[in-house]
Amino acid sequence: MTTSREMHLIAYLKTGPTANHMGAWRHPEADLQNVLTPGYYEHLARVLENGRFDGCFFADGLGLHDIYNGGYQTRLQLGGQISFLDPMMVLPLMARATTHLGICTTLSTTFHQPYNLARMLSSLDILSGGRVAWNIVTSTRREEALNFGMDDLPTRDERYDRADEVVEACCALWDCWEEGSLVMDKENGLMVDASKVHYANYEGRWTKTRGPLTIPRSPQGRPVLMQAGSSPRGRDFAARWAEVIFVPLNDKAELRAFREDIAARMSAVGRDPAKCAILPSLRVVVGETESIAEEKAAYLDSLIDPELVIAARSSEIGVDLAQPMKDIDAIGKARGTQGMHESFARVQRLMEQENIGFEDALRRQSRRGTLVGTAQSIVDQMQDLFDGEACDGFIIEQMVVPSSLEEFCRTIVPELQKRGLLRREYRGTTLRENLQ
Amino acid sequence: MTTSREMHLIAYLKTGPTANHMGAWRHPEADLQNVLTPGYYEHLARVLENGRFDGCFFADGLGLHDIYNGGYQTRLQLGGQISFLDPMMVLPLMARATTHLGICTTLSTTFHQPYNLARMLSSLDILSGGRVAWNIVTSTRREEALNFGMDDLPTRDERYDRADEVVEACCALWDCWEEGSLVMDKENGLMVDASKVHYANYEGRWTKTRGPLTIPRSPQGRPVLMQAGSSPRGRDFAARWAEVIFVPLNDKAELRAFREDIAARMSAVGRDPAKCAILPSLRVVVGETESIAEEKAAYLDSLIDPELVIAARSSEIGVDLAQPMKDIDAIGKARGTQGMHESFARVQRLMEQENIGFEDALRRQSRRGTLVGTAQSIVDQMQDLFDGEACDGFIIEQMVVPSSLEEFCRTIVPELQKRGLLRREYRGTTLRENLQ
Repeated sequence: MTTSREMHLIAYLKTGPTANHMGAWRHPEADLQNVLTPGYYEHLARVLENGRFDGCFFADGLGLHDIYNGGYQTRLQLGGQISFLDPMMVLPLMARATTHLGICTTLSTTFHQPYNLARMLSSLDILSGGRVAWNIVTSTRREEALNFGMDDLPTRDERYDRADEVVEACCALWDCWEEGSLVMDKENGLMVDASKVHYANYEGRWTKTRGPLTIPRSPQGRPVLMQAGSSPRGRDFAARWAEVIFVPLNDKAELRAFREDIAARMSAVGRDPAKCAILPSLRVVVGETESIAEEKAAYLDSLIDPELVIAARSSEIGVDLAQPMKDIDAIGKARGTQGMHESFARVQRLMEQENIGFEDALRRQSRRGTLVGTAQSIVDQMQDLFDGEACDGFIIEQMVVPSSLEEFCRTIVPELQKRGLLRREYRGTTLRENLQ
Repeated sequence: MTTSREMHLIAYLKTGPTANHMGAWRHPEADLQNVLTPGYYEHLARVLENGRFDGCFFADGLGLHDIYNGGYQTRLQLGGQISFLDPMMVLPLMARATTHLGICTTLSTTFHQPYNLARMLSSLDILSGGRVAWNIVTSTRREEALNFGMDDLPTRDERYDRADEVVEACCALWDCWEEGSLVMDKENGLMVDASKVHYANYEGRWTKTRGPLTIPRSPQGRPVLMQAGSSPRGRDFAARWAEVIFVPLNDKAELRAFREDIAARMSAVGRDPAKCAILPSLRVVVGETESIAEEKAAYLDSLIDPELVIAARSSEIGVDLAQPMKDIDAIGKARGTQGMHESFARVQRLMEQENIGFEDALRRQSRRGTLVGTAQSIVDQMQDLFDGEACDGFIIEQMVVPSSLEEFCRTIVPELQKRGLLRREYRGTTLRENLQ
């Protein structure tokens, strides 16, 4: 069976050896020695480009996870998600090592100034020939606020209001230089046609910037915007701005409902729903047979320290689960302004659906978002979601560095291509063109 | 004549085709087509490393120059110093293309948060194997403040007080991870020895950050710190922090006096004056004969639009010189909190020394900091300053991109090496080691 639509694939990366799977860094194949070297990131970029991914993006946070048991120790020791390098410092290398791969990082609207954001992203868009995306986050952890001189996070709504302004301000800055303003005419001594350069003069409630940028207009004009919010306010934000939305993997009905909800919200603000790709996030464990894959998955899971699961859920939900506070309502209150809407809602749903307690619901998720099987059976499931209009492709999560993504490109990619579900060659030059 | 001391050389760069010489971008050799591509910066880095420079640094500003004639138009049109790319986006590429060259950029303590600064610089220090420096600036232009939501710059003293705090905060963050804290022991499941990771808990009047960084300790522990302040407050700041100070080229007596003043200030705060290199900033125009060099210099100067000189001085001094305000006291008042101390003082000195008016003093400086001659005669002058203990080496300014620096490495470098004034091979691994 073939289809005329093609999937979009984006790799989910972290700098360093850890990402979402909490034991994969301990796998014998994990290449820990090179994860802090330029060559590692260049290699990964080439692998993904050979696999015809649309792009890759780095998850990131501006502080160690510091909530479980009142500190950062457990997650540091056990290797919970840590950003060992500022992704902005490796993206130029990954762009340089490739010609078509989109490169993206996570940047917070709560802790970065629009002028700096706009300048960095424009510069990288120029250097990469138009392949940059920005995963917009509002930041969800109090410990990040403490690193930036605040006493606490702003409330969720305020963070999104501020995010709207920061993105508006960035867009105003990106529009300062019209196309064709950079002339560089030596003979007439005209560097820039200044009549084509304008002030931004952006003034919001939280954010103000005059402009213009010092940076000429970039190939894409502005980076592709990515977002992952799932609360109602987050969905409104995504409907207004996002060209890629990533969501947790869920069953077909729930993903369809999400996709339709976003489409409705996009239409309501005058955007064409086709202009946004909805990508559930996925891990795959692939084997020659189902039982090999099962054993590989079980082996990977055996590398996870159970305490790290609870520590990770603490950060996601925004409350210290080492404390004796097992009542879901009490936990809801203790979160304050922290944590991710979807992470908390998922636990609540699980408790209701399965009629289980809080702790069981927490632990029940170790394989969430993971497809285990042969290349054929995994692609069957991906195709089922894709053909069923539940998604437009997938976010593929890094597990063992870098062999899981190498394996994905060796096994899943050819099967996708055989079925006509994935490009064999890039058609566009810019990331935005390839996402069409 | 040889000497046992060796000079330190650092190249002064801007992203894009313009730097301090206001006409060089119009030179027929200027490679304007490639200045926004990665290859240009990689090439430049290799040229400088082959020339055994200690490092290179990018001057930068967070806004277009926007004071002359009440706008940015003149400087944009005529090609005044413009940062066409965020230097942080090209430094990873330059580090990757080389193995010993120090890489440095300018980052403002007024417009960047310590947590972001520390994270970027540590990451780059890791990726480059310990070759990063930070040129610390407090920012001197109101138009930059307007880009960051402020109505005006803080006063000079407040900017330096804040800078002290930002650097203190960064150092506290860089010290969060002790050496040896990153373990990555798969078998025992120990990623990090968390007992060696600490909070920064920095709290100043302007700046607060808790830490720890998410980034492990970098090879240099902290980047090499560079500074260029010349006001008394700026000198105190430099004496406390700087490992490299760059100053405008001046006569031997004045440079010696400056160097002795810094040494005294360093001793007063308990630092060894040998731990800071004082580097005057220099342009060279070299020819096979003195008259060829003279003609080359005259040709370069003929490319400068006189209005751009006045526009550039407006930014340096911090007042719109297009306005009818020719009295030096009125100009002093109109500056407010803007401009650079040394730029204004230099004009005042010139007026007194030469008994000339303000406009004459402004224009009299077109060749300031420029040595014109054969390689021998230029090196004679450099050696005279160096042997006379007036400096520890030089900042070499980019002129025609990239041929001026290529020419410097072809002509001046071999002559310096022949006289034993410049290394033939790097001795250290890190930038700080090479600066010893």
